Amino acid sequence: MTPDDIEGFFAKREDLNLEDYIELDFDFECAGDPREAAAHLGSEQSTAQWRRVGVDEDFRPRFAAKVLELQSEPRPNGFSIAVECAAKGAVHAVRVTIAHPHGNFGPKIPNLLSAVCGEGVFFSPGIPLIRLQDIRFPDSFLAAFQGPQFGVSGLREVLQAFDRPIFFGVIKPNIGLAAEPFAELGYQSWLGGLDIAKDDEMLADVDWCPLGERAAALGDARRRAEAETGVPKIYLANITDEVDRLIELHDLAVEKGANALLINAMPVGLSGVRMLRKHAKVPLIAHFPFIAAFSRLSGYGIHSRVFTRLQRLVGFDVVIMPGFGPRMMTPEHEVLDCVRACLEPMGPIKPCLPVPGGSDSAATLEGVYRKVGSVDFGFVPGRGVFGHPMGPAAGAASIRQAWDAIARGIAVADHAASHKELAAALQAFGGR
Amino acid sequence: MTPDDIEGFFAKREDLNLEDYIELDFDFECAGDPREAAAHLGSEQSTAQWRRVGVDEDFRPRFAAKVLELQSEPRPNGFSIAVECAAKGAVHAVRVTIAHPHGNFGPKIPNLLSAVCGEGVFFSPGIPLIRLQDIRFPDSFLAAFQGPQFGVSGLREVLQAFDRPIFFGVIKPNIGLAAEPFAELGYQSWLGGLDIAKDDEMLADVDWCPLGERAAALGDARRRAEAETGVPKIYLANITDEVDRLIELHDLAVEKGANALLINAMPVGLSGVRMLRKHAKVPLIAHFPFIAAFSRLSGYGIHSRVFTRLQRLVGFDVVIMPGFGPRMMTPEHEVLDCVRACLEPMGPIKPCLPVPGGSDSAATLEGVYRKVGSVDFGFVPGRGVFGHPMGPAAGAASIRQAWDAIARGIAVADHAASHKELAAALQAFGGR
Repeated sequence: MTPDDIEGFFAKREDLNLEDYIELDFDFECAGDPREAAAHLGSEQSTAQWRRVGVDEDFRPRFAAKVLELQSEPRPNGFSIAVECAAKGAVHAVRVTIAHPHGNFGPKIPNLLSAVCGEGVFFSPGIPLIRLQDIRFPDSFLAAFQGPQFGVSGLREVLQAFDRPIFFGVIKPNIGLAAEPFAELGYQSWLGGLDIAKDDEMLADVDWCPLGERAAALGDARRRAEAETGVPKIYLANITDEVDRLIELHDLAVEKGANALLINAMPVGLSGVRMLRKHAKVPLIAHFPFIAAFSRLSGYGIHSRVFTRLQRLVGFDVVIMPGFGPRMMTPEHEVLDCVRACLEPMGPIKPCLPVPGGSDSAATLEGVYRKVGSVDFGFVPGRGVFGHPMGPAAGAASIRQAWDAIARGIAVADHAASHKELAAALQAFGGR
Repeated sequence: MTPDDIEGFFAKREDLNLEDYIELDFDFECAGDPREAAAHLGSEQSTAQWRRVGVDEDFRPRFAAKVLELQSEPRPNGFSIAVECAAKGAVHAVRVTIAHPHGNFGPKIPNLLSAVCGEGVFFSPGIPLIRLQDIRFPDSFLAAFQGPQFGVSGLREVLQAFDRPIFFGVIKPNIGLAAEPFAELGYQSWLGGLDIAKDDEMLADVDWCPLGERAAALGDARRRAEAETGVPKIYLANITDEVDRLIELHDLAVEKGANALLINAMPVGLSGVRMLRKHAKVPLIAHFPFIAAFSRLSGYGIHSRVFTRLQRLVGFDVVIMPGFGPRMMTPEHEVLDCVRACLEPMGPIKPCLPVPGGSDSAATLEGVYRKVGSVDFGFVPGRGVFGHPMGPAAGAASIRQAWDAIARGIAVADHAASHKELAAALQAFGGR
């Protein structure tokens, strides 16, 4: 690129109509001049050849992605991660903010992903290492999306559960059980105090436990539990399947007795979820398979909060995400970034409920609550309820007992002295 | 895990009915005992809690993912990539092959992805770094998929192009042009000798160049070019869009004059592509946005050939992939792995055409051909045709002239002495 070529991919915020642009924060490491690398990054994700041969024209003013901010510092020891085909030259660590004109593609998820996580971003000359750190949408773009139908407040209304976390549990054994014994476990957990008993993300519509049979059995168990406890309950059925079955499975599961649906967001595809959202009658809950494959490393890939925002945008009411603690291998600051991405203002799009999960139990509830810093979260043990030595009802009770202690300002360990389910949970799971 | 727990996740091939299992090759780095880490990896991706509390049962024989092979060596210097939340302990580099029972979920893409690239794989205790290196399907699983409708031989029939590579070109400027001038560029490139003029992966159905108008203009230009040259041509229209518009856009584009369709596979979602395949009347061509985000690093993520295989499985006739040379930052061995994944036997699934691409021109054709080692590939310049100093017809001609030289055993540079389009191409692009 010539200096003039490069200049065409830089702009100042005050010279742009910011409603026309999505803003992208990238961290990258490049070989060679950081300013030229940043211009390439803008060019490759938008109008890589901005004129026809022999025609006096320039598509950059309208169509170019433009660098708004750039900071760089040398990395004398080279790239932070070895890349077999990295470019040669002096290495810099660079942070840029880029304004990408969304009129290039319109308010469509696949085209958005192609623009901001596509060839232009990951094959930009001189940039072997890059991470999309965050994304911000103008209201003009957000207006085309429905977002969550229920959101945090709608889900609380359904459950009549206010001023406290929402208590989920993953029914275990996660795969292998037939519908009836599986429903019995859910029933026990509701009696013990869970709000939401859920299918594992790996349990789908399978011949050894068909979705229709399972939803019927769990729906019946749910209504019995509601009658006995006097409070609303949710059976969260996993309808993860091919996109052309989502509507049919939604209708089947809801008709039979499921009153919320789980979808593995990335495996199904966010666009498929957006389609389902238009039809959905019940809350939609996201699970996180696949996201770690591109989000774990701090120096390459895509920050997980980008996909938290996108899951909220396409209409999930709840986003289950890797939670706190070493088990889930996600830094605390990243979990909190994802929690905020669910709850913070997003134009006309409702907040969704963050559920930071992973090997939770009565022993971890207080830590999660303190870290999140509010009651607007979901808590989702698996074995912490269904592997409780006294059974699932006791497992669920141990969670509620732990919350009672926290809410009343009593030490959880002290509360256990008079609550045997909690005591057993702390003994079984507290050492983790 | 106890030693007995661990044992339940190991098996020998001869003790399994291999038709019931998908085989997965993983490389990982773990802290602690490699054999226990491998057992966790099998457990987490299948039946993590294999019995109910108080019930004498074991779901592992039928439902467990089982380690078939394990090799490990110590890494005295620790993990190869820094991970903020990595487990502590002595580090080993481990290679395992795992047999995953596909009856756990059935022949469904989202559930397959959840199993083999999901929480179980990327959040297995003690394993912060893991890469899914390859996947093999038994015929009983493959039989549920359609695969390519045309495949390599079908595409050759459509084009009447045998015993040579298929010549694609990405019309440039890639975004910003209205339908008519865009069609004129395609027309020129067909006259010059391209088989397939294509939309860029970033050009979709947009208000400044609606798909219907574009397909009509290009369809008309294509028919004129076919009449003038006497050979079949393809206009490859990009219909990447929300999944609930794919069928509608397929019908619109084909009715107006497109005779092959481009879909950005991962942004749309492989399941959406499988749905489209059931309806498609023309060849489907995959582009590769998003894949690099999880495939570039040798020590983490998913090898790109896994997604080449999946793109073939869901029905793509052509897979465009990052090609050779430093520009695309993909090691030669990995490009060749992906080429083979398109062409090698895959049960009842037809071969698809590999198109290794990236900054190609007449100057790079011979190198690509020598590396691929056969004529069964597509060649896809962008600026190498549409940035040619003499225009797109000359750009296309330069590619065909280069191929003529190669096919006749003449040095491309020598052939340029009597072919001015080729000479200009080598001068403009040869230094890259």
